[in-house]
Amino acid sequence: MNITAAYTDLYQITMAQVYFSTKPDGQAVFDYYYRSNPFDGGYSIFAGLEDVLDVLENLKFSPTDLAYLEQQGFEKDFLEYLKAFRFRGSIRSCKEGDVVFPTRPILQVEANIIEAQIIETFLLNILNFQTLIATKASRIRHSAKDGVLLDMGLRRAHATGGYYASRAAFIGGFDGTSNVKAAEDYNIPCSGTMAHSFIQSYGDELKAFRDFAKVRPKNCVLLIDTYNTLKSGLPNAITVAKEMESRGQKLMGVRLDSGDLAYLSKKTRAILDDANLEYVKIVASNQLDEYVIKSLKEQGAQIDIFGVGTNLVTGKPDASLGGVYKLSEYKGEPRIKLSENLIKVSLPYKKQVYRMIDANGKFYGADAVTLYNEDPLTHMEHPFDATKRLDLTALKQEPLLENVMDNGKRVVPSRSASEIAEYSKSRLEKLPEEYKRFQNPHIYKIGLSPKLKQERDALILKHKA
Amino acid sequence: MNITAAYTDLYQITMAQVYFSTKPDGQAVFDYYYRSNPFDGGYSIFAGLEDVLDVLENLKFSPTDLAYLEQQGFEKDFLEYLKAFRFRGSIRSCKEGDVVFPTRPILQVEANIIEAQIIETFLLNILNFQTLIATKASRIRHSAKDGVLLDMGLRRAHATGGYYASRAAFIGGFDGTSNVKAAEDYNIPCSGTMAHSFIQSYGDELKAFRDFAKVRPKNCVLLIDTYNTLKSGLPNAITVAKEMESRGQKLMGVRLDSGDLAYLSKKTRAILDDANLEYVKIVASNQLDEYVIKSLKEQGAQIDIFGVGTNLVTGKPDASLGGVYKLSEYKGEPRIKLSENLIKVSLPYKKQVYRMIDANGKFYGADAVTLYNEDPLTHMEHPFDATKRLDLTALKQEPLLENVMDNGKRVVPSRSASEIAEYSKSRLEKLPEEYKRFQNPHIYKIGLSPKLKQERDALILKHKA
Repeated sequence: MNITAAYTDLYQITMAQVYFSTKPDGQAVFDYYYRSNPFDGGYSIFAGLEDVLDVLENLKFSPTDLAYLEQQGFEKDFLEYLKAFRFRGSIRSCKEGDVVFPTRPILQVEANIIEAQIIETFLLNILNFQTLIATKASRIRHSAKDGVLLDMGLRRAHATGGYYASRAAFIGGFDGTSNVKAAEDYNIPCSGTMAHSFIQSYGDELKAFRDFAKVRPKNCVLLIDTYNTLKSGLPNAITVAKEMESRGQKLMGVRLDSGDLAYLSKKTRAILDDANLEYVKIVASNQLDEYVIKSLKEQGAQIDIFGVGTNLVTGKPDASLGGVYKLSEYKGEPRIKLSENLIKVSLPYKKQVYRMIDANGKFYGADAVTLYNEDPLTHMEHPFDATKRLDLTALKQEPLLENVMDNGKRVVPSRSASEIAEYSKSRLEKLPEEYKRFQNPHIYKIGLSPKLKQERDALILKHKA
Repeated sequence: MNITAAYTDLYQITMAQVYFSTKPDGQAVFDYYYRSNPFDGGYSIFAGLEDVLDVLENLKFSPTDLAYLEQQGFEKDFLEYLKAFRFRGSIRSCKEGDVVFPTRPILQVEANIIEAQIIETFLLNILNFQTLIATKASRIRHSAKDGVLLDMGLRRAHATGGYYASRAAFIGGFDGTSNVKAAEDYNIPCSGTMAHSFIQSYGDELKAFRDFAKVRPKNCVLLIDTYNTLKSGLPNAITVAKEMESRGQKLMGVRLDSGDLAYLSKKTRAILDDANLEYVKIVASNQLDEYVIKSLKEQGAQIDIFGVGTNLVTGKPDASLGGVYKLSEYKGEPRIKLSENLIKVSLPYKKQVYRMIDANGKFYGADAVTLYNEDPLTHMEHPFDATKRLDLTALKQEPLLENVMDNGKRVVPSRSASEIAEYSKSRLEKLPEEYKRFQNPHIYKIGLSPKLKQERDALILKHKA
């Protein structure tokens, strides 16, 4: 399946037909944002932008899409429009890999409303998922500290979504993936060991290890839990490691995939060290996530490399990020979506977001949402609590949204997954620790400029009247 | 991203290199099965087979895959092998859409071990996910009874995994999807209504409804909760419905997307009926799943059509099915994977699975796993409890695994998603109700033939010696 413009919800096309027939010229602004951090965490890592831009530059309806839509009863003149459809709008976005927070725009689309609607589903589909997984990866990185993290989740991923999961995991702090296709396309380090079936096919574990080490001596990792980790797998691995030494080679590691990883890794480390194999690394896998890895670390487990699968690539337990795409301006007029639930009230107009930086260059813990071309702020206001405001005069204000696409074409160079991962790491380092802890993380402040708040409140009152 | 043979884990290719260099001719049998039903349910719906067969018939490494693997240090002669790689093995499978149960083979791959390993990741990736989602859909269908069920989840799906989610949801009992691409490719009914942004773009709700109804009078569903459901949305929809009547048209429905759906749907139904609009359907959406729909039904909610998104397409709360692929035979010799955990011990040899059918043609509640060519069974034995056996003499025994692919080519006609959905429905009707309930469903019995059990136990003892 290739992503074409038909990778959308039917209602986008139905609405497009109505706009086309009744008011085809309306320019719209939509905000992409989410309402709460996944995993009860204190932040998210924004990911997926490069994929979105790559697709948007070339998005069209295929001939089979058009034939299908004709069958669905869309009119001839509208089908002609769809045939010529390209995304010709603009996008302003914060940088991919940045640390982001709820309720403030991460990205804005400004385009003819027909184009803006047709791309909505695709844009949400890619950004919601990659942001979820990059955030999960970042949390696992937080637990693993300097340990090596490998994504091994493709077999449990949501079909081809696993391709994007591997990319997002790398952006969020993983070192590599077992997913060959993703590694190839996104230039992510690729790694792999062996499966139990390999050893089973031999019946003889030692012979299996020997053959493997002979053919693949580089980065050789032996899986030692097929029969009995300490009584069979580890002694056989040591035999092979010594044979490799005699050939001037070094066994890279042994892998544990079952049992008590804390206990087994400590025992394994001690036995390897006694055999003068201090250089042999210990790889562990089996239903790991940020909490299990944290616990393993606390128990002094001797694990150098963590293989993480299901919990990473499915973003468990949340499994989804509820990012939304809300109309904030139409034909130059502000638009708002009301709700009984205050957090669901959207923000009108084209906007900018400023991050507050303290005197040490660290994030102060506040982003301010303003109208697009406002003067620097002296203070920001709480979105709803009129008694709360924050003085910003001592802080540096960094604008976060930048033009990345104009008239359907990129206006910034594309960035590799490595560059984005590096950037993400540098940004996360500026976020104080209290926002990163798993239990009740500190709440990052999102404020509004006085002007934006005033405009929004006037609109709310107007709609209620 | 197109699925090529590089859509796999690196270790499959690494192991393949070792097999290629040391023992390239080993024929292997692998079993696909899972160990426990998702969602604490009593069954699963097997899905994804047609996609697997479609891909396998044409699977190869692309030139860029091969260039990448060369960079990764694989040897020239092995790269030549990969260049010529095709899947030339056989597959025996139960029918897609069938009701399946834990610990028994759903599908067996018989092929050269190199080919069997290279396809493993892809096969698990597609079957695990689609089976998860078809099962979720089936549970939602169980709650919704005769209500119409529409998948609207693409925006919250795991990137392009959403494409396969829409297909699997249809197989599991949904009536249609909003996902245009999936509807087009899999010939699934496609439907859609309108978004809040449509009404917001007008500012004037009545004008928005009027324009929509004029341009799209067929299957017209008006979203009535943008401003105030009962005070604004519903009265405006009624006005438009009457205008449509005067043009000889009929409003298909109104949609509720927030608030108390039980209360609002009953109110809405009564008001529509008072306006002689008994034919106007009520569509509801907003974080629905099998439990919410069950509760709505119990409260007498007046909902004709349920739109289900996130919880369906992400398979929440499980988000994954832990299906595995275990070596059961190599070069004609049985293979077994041991574990301290009895449920993790695999079954050796090529096998067949028989479903027990009672005198009324219903499923009796037992599947028996046998060696491939055994005589009909008179009884089956519990996998581990020697005191438990089941007399089968009064039951019809239906073989479940059939040849679907030989020498890399399909040997059965491909089946459309509609045919599979119909088949699935007919199979589920044969499963007694007690296996379908959400709370502590009855446990379906999986037994072994006496011969298979004897062979397995002998192998276990041999390995422990």
